[in-house]
Amino acid sequence: MPSFEMHVEVTHLPGIADPAGATVERALPALGYTNVSQVHIGKTIRLVVDAADEDTARREVDEMCKRLLANPVIESYVITSTSLERA
Amino acid sequence: MPSFEMHVEVTHLPGIADPAGATVERALPALGYTNVSQVHIGKTIRLVVDAADEDTARREVDEMCKRLLANPVIESYVITSTSLERA
Repeated sequence: MPSFEMHVEVTHLPGIADPAGATVERALPALGYTNVSQVHIGKTIRLVVDAADEDTARREVDEMCKRLLANPVIESYVITSTSLERA
Repeated sequence: MPSFEMHVEVTHLPGIADPAGATVERALPALGYTNVSQVHIGKTIRLVVDAADEDTARREVDEMCKRLLANPVIESYVITSTSLERA
């Protein structure tokens, strides 16, 4: 069965507080970086999925995001996939 | 001064324990996903930097990663940048 390298980027929905991002945004000027704004911190998940085809892999990862990897109430996510050649 | 949208993906260096990834990898089979392997969880940081040019922006973000955003002893990071058109 072919393998696919899946990449998920999970970020806060607009309007949801991002305390880690806000903390970094406050810390950077203290280090001399006064030219930085709109800091957002999210989560990235990489995984390898065996599936019949890329569409199936993406559908399964979308389900995993809804059930475990992300919280759809406060987070959005973007899935990208790469086919891994089998040697 | 032009603005650049910078994206940093921070991941564990190879060989460094990734407990969050290991937990997800153990949890997925319990949800019925037995076709998943090599789960790695990292951090993603998006920020807007005002700089004279894209090279300067990347250099500054690289410094920020070393000083604040990542821990180079246990983490590696990849920086990507996009130029934001000024209206």
